[in-house]
Amino acid sequence: MTSTITPDFAKQGGLIPAIVQDYRTGDVLMLAYMNKEAFRETQKTKTAVYFSRSRNRLWRKGETSGHVQKVKEIFIDCDNDTVLLKVEQAGGAACHEGYKSCFFRKIEDGKEIVTGKRVFDPKEVYR
Amino acid sequence: MTSTITPDFAKQGGLIPAIVQDYRTGDVLMLAYMNKEAFRETQKTKTAVYFSRSRNRLWRKGETSGHVQKVKEIFIDCDNDTVLLKVEQAGGAACHEGYKSCFFRKIEDGKEIVTGKRVFDPKEVYR
Repeated sequence: MTSTITPDFAKQGGLIPAIVQDYRTGDVLMLAYMNKEAFRETQKTKTAVYFSRSRNRLWRKGETSGHVQKVKEIFIDCDNDTVLLKVEQAGGAACHEGYKSCFFRKIEDGKEIVTGKRVFDPKEVYR
Repeated sequence: MTSTITPDFAKQGGLIPAIVQDYRTGDVLMLAYMNKEAFRETQKTKTAVYFSRSRNRLWRKGETSGHVQKVKEIFIDCDNDTVLLKVEQAGGAACHEGYKSCFFRKIEDGKEIVTGKRVFDPKEVYR
């Protein structure tokens, strides 16, 4: 049984969080936000499009770095207010700081420990 | 090199999203929110404590269902505004609808397809 579904954008002022996971390794790469248009564009282009809260506009992931995300699968949670994208990450890194995942630091006893390895030098990619 | 770190709770009105991942399988189980107190309690008890937006109070995950989450590792993202918990899920299911993951539905061409399998009957667990 299938039925039509749209995330509940109204609940959180027009934006929903999108968890982004590497479809092969299962690594969580990042969390971004989508408005209705970003979600529509992501479905249409099968490439991740987010809404940048800092730039206040659509953000085609990889538009500067080339590190686009091909969207393999989209899941939605029980409350219809969060989506999970399984993606193929171009360039091997999702984070603008050059790490594979934005979650490259572990917190232990209130201290941060860098556990990720740098894949690229941000100064070379974002000039 | 380690340094002290606290998530940026002020940025989003006191709450940060917490992505919850099965530490063994890498499955993304759910997304919840934490305020400063929930984050502190999670670190202290090594058991997931969230802030329930619908009930407007601390929510000790599993307090009704018994499906507690033992927190194995906590990661923080590059912007300091999202955390990732790697957990051991008691009862094999994180979702109140009885599925392992809250992301038990896939979206394809705008339609939802249930891809998860029910682990428990919600009517039996939440009386």
